[in-house]
Amino acid sequence: MAEQKFITFLSDFGLADDFVGTCRGVIKKISPEVQIIDITHGVARHDILQGAVILANAVPYMPESVILAVVDPGVGGERKSLAIRTVSGQYLVGPDNGLLSLAADVLGGPEAAVELACSTYSLPEVCKTFEGRDLFSPAAAHLARGVDMEKLGASVPVAGLTKLELPEPAIAGPEVTATTIYVDSFGNVQLHLSREQLEHVGAAVGSMLEVSHGEENWKVPFVRSFSDVAPEEIMVYEDSYHKISFAVNQGDAAGVFQIAPGNQMTFRAIG
Amino acid sequence: MAEQKFITFLSDFGLADDFVGTCRGVIKKISPEVQIIDITHGVARHDILQGAVILANAVPYMPESVILAVVDPGVGGERKSLAIRTVSGQYLVGPDNGLLSLAADVLGGPEAAVELACSTYSLPEVCKTFEGRDLFSPAAAHLARGVDMEKLGASVPVAGLTKLELPEPAIAGPEVTATTIYVDSFGNVQLHLSREQLEHVGAAVGSMLEVSHGEENWKVPFVRSFSDVAPEEIMVYEDSYHKISFAVNQGDAAGVFQIAPGNQMTFRAIG
Amino acid sequence: MAEQKFITFLSDFGLADDFVGTCRGVIKKISPEVQIIDITHGVARHDILQGAVILANAVPYMPESVILAVVDPGVGGERKSLAIRTVSGQYLVGPDNGLLSLAADVLGGPEAAVELACSTYSLPEVCKTFEGRDLFSPAAAHLARGVDMEKLGASVPVAGLTKLELPEPAIAGPEVTATTIYVDSFGNVQLHLSREQLEHVGAAVGSMLEVSHGEENWKVPFVRSFSDVAPEEIMVYEDSYHKISFAVNQGDAAGVFQIAPGNQMTFRAIG
Repeated sequence: MAEQKFITFLSDFGLADDFVGTCRGVIKKISPEVQIIDITHGVARHDILQGAVILANAVPYMPESVILAVVDPGVGGERKSLAIRTVSGQYLVGPDNGLLSLAADVLGGPEAAVELACSTYSLPEVCKTFEGRDLFSPAAAHLARGVDMEKLGASVPVAGLTKLELPEPAIAGPEVTATTIYVDSFGNVQLHLSREQLEHVGAAVGSMLEVSHGEENWKVPFVRSFSDVAPEEIMVYEDSYHKISFAVNQGDAAGVFQIAPGNQMTFRAIG
Repeated sequence: MAEQKFITFLSDFGLADDFVGTCRGVIKKISPEVQIIDITHGVARHDILQGAVILANAVPYMPESVILAVVDPGVGGERKSLAIRTVSGQYLVGPDNGLLSLAADVLGGPEAAVELACSTYSLPEVCKTFEGRDLFSPAAAHLARGVDMEKLGASVPVAGLTKLELPEPAIAGPEVTATTIYVDSFGNVQLHLSREQLEHVGAAVGSMLEVSHGEENWKVPFVRSFSDVAPEEIMVYEDSYHKISFAVNQGDAAGVFQIAPGNQMTFRAIG
Repeated sequence: MAEQKFITFLSDFGLADDFVGTCRGVIKKISPEVQIIDITHGVARHDILQGAVILANAVPYMPESVILAVVDPGVGGERKSLAIRTVSGQYLVGPDNGLLSLAADVLGGPEAAVELACSTYSLPEVCKTFEGRDLFSPAAAHLARGVDMEKLGASVPVAGLTKLELPEPAIAGPEVTATTIYVDSFGNVQLHLSREQLEHVGAAVGSMLEVSHGEENWKVPFVRSFSDVAPEEIMVYEDSYHKISFAVNQGDAAGVFQIAPGNQMTFRAIG
């Protein structure tokens, strides 16, 4: 394969410890000229769904790169350690727990995969508690300098890779029920719901919606941007990743209304 | 214009989400060799004054760069999106809400400005909720690779740009009252007050001051550095950005005494 | 000396303010092509021991670099500002308070050192409250571009450098008492205790241990990795830095059991 100029890197390691820094060091020792772009290391600990959603959201904005992603509650266990080549020719490296699956789909789906093995392409000693450092970072660095993926381990069938399935929105007459998939650090709530799906039940930018979550419900304007409502007002909008979102302008919707990823919300157009 | 080796980047995005990472990706797609120096992304959300003060403090220590700054409560609204060229020949990119104004002054003041438009120099589709990614990052990246600022949008008169006005210290006989402008994460309180202004009312390093804030007042030494007082002791000093500051050695002055930006503090020399 | 491609950087500055960003700017102004690898800036404020342990843990994974480390409660006081050359030929820059000592030992021990002085290799004006920016960052940047260490200040004898002494484990018959040296952000507790030392009292991976801390004690399996116990279960393991550690799988051991660095824990093999 050709050399890659970039490694894009996402994890749940946080920045308080040296975990991210140590992975950076390992990468740079192997591939000194590769540029590392940190997507984020603030994924909630062990939250595979959140990591997968953020990665899939971000990948279209990244330059061509080797994608390194580690959110790995099963480290040291039976889950495989993977490198995947997508139909579009990009590489993803990380655990086989679904974390990579949504981003792989954005890139055309997986074309081939290998199970990473201890080898001359890992650190000499692979510790069972920090494969991010010992197995995944070296694999990404070697892929970036042009090593063939097939040298990193034995081939595994792509049909057997773990996939996350996001629950599809349910349309029932004049309303649609969708699942919350991500809460950002401002408290904005992203749904697995597209504008087209919301328009399907009669909503349009500029109209009012009745939105319900558990016992609560609100009348909320469907707007274009934050500045279309007053501070502290509730709003529904198509967010910058083309997902319908629920927010409070300059406020914390998820905190105030106790909404978390995996919740159900129902939207009904009321004109 | 000449190419720039660096983009310096400040925002209130935090590092928990992918917002900063996605902007980095957008920049690197357009200008793969530019080096991005993160000034900070920890500005308090929507705090334009704090962002402006930090940016103006930091800019003198940065290499020549395109300065990208986004603290933008009015995103999607009527405020302009700007690129500014300063008298010193550097570029600033960000919203027209005053955020850029203090740094622009440090660089000689604005010489010319354009209102950023959707164009071949933005992302193809500009989302009204994330102009940092879609409009500001691409503009900074194109400026860094040498594109003329005038190609990014229509010229706007620099006299009309939004400016922040910091309240000047008020000298009344033997005392001076100044405004707190920044509290750092250690709780040190920075005032819009220079050493020269404090000396004007008779204070000198080594002397004692009476300092008051609201109902409280303290006798405090005016010292050179933290090690000049015992741990947990209150002190006044000229900080590393040449502003008078109020601190507790190895403690959290702002937290303990409930001091926030925009407060008034009065200083009187007592010998 | 030869040029260095990398500066590795650790501090307790956090990322909320511009302190790290401003140091990056200072370095890049002097040495535009050097690559800065952030090890972490999340060291607990003023915690020299924690900084020293993290630095020594991380250094073996870093490419050859100038190591810049700043955790400096005594800034502006009597402690020296240092550059050290190690027996292995690498450089460390930071305060003489023990922070650099464990990493220097990992690199063969100090061979020579200088006390950094205000000079053409510092910023023109050295502020007594931010030597990280004014003295240490410029020194690291000049070393990286190949300036001889001896030009940065007067030589000081390496025998006089401040060293941290970690308390050695105490073996008493069938049990060993060791000191906790680091709690990571997941709550995992690292001890100054090697696997060999634990095996010396009869423990082996797969066996059970009785572990005590203060008034509490537990029966805990000595395992290879997190996935060897159920979620929420206590475990003892050799961590990825070759230290014995105490953890709760997918939980926060330090938080739940109130364990902090500097505590004593006793381990006894019970088969």
